[in-house]
Amino acid sequence: MKARVHVMLKNGVLDPQGEAVRHALGSLGFDGVEGVRQGKVIELDLADGTTEETVRDMCEKLLANTVIESYTVELA
Amino acid sequence: MKARVHVMLKNGVLDPQGEAVRHALGSLGFDGVEGVRQGKVIELDLADGTTEETVRDMCEKLLANTVIESYTVELA
Repeated sequence: MKARVHVMLKNGVLDPQGEAVRHALGSLGFDGVEGVRQGKVIELDLADGTTEETVRDMCEKLLANTVIESYTVELA
Repeated sequence: MKARVHVMLKNGVLDPQGEAVRHALGSLGFDGVEGVRQGKVIELDLADGTTEETVRDMCEKLLANTVIESYTVELA
């Protein structure tokens, strides 16, 4: 089974990487880019029967820094 | 309007970051993690009426390195 985890900086946490992308898009002539946030996506190939709770546990312990990042889990 | 872009390394391209995560999850006692791929997710806040084609153009020109990365675009 597959799981996909999105890790994004929480709202209010400065995202210099996203800001750099926003600026670069403007320089390339793309108008109307009002904001950019960049995060991570982690695709996990897991043994069948792994629960969403286990994946959340992985996020809490390793994949996300929950002080400044939030995460979402999708199982497929 | 919002757009979300996923940028992942193409299959066959070595993903040392994903491999490091897989190894770390094993060390933490999570069994059954067969593979991990790590990529980027970019959330764009765009002017209304921006087309998917424009976002694809951003990917080709800046957001993805199309030699080794593939991307998907979702408009919301």
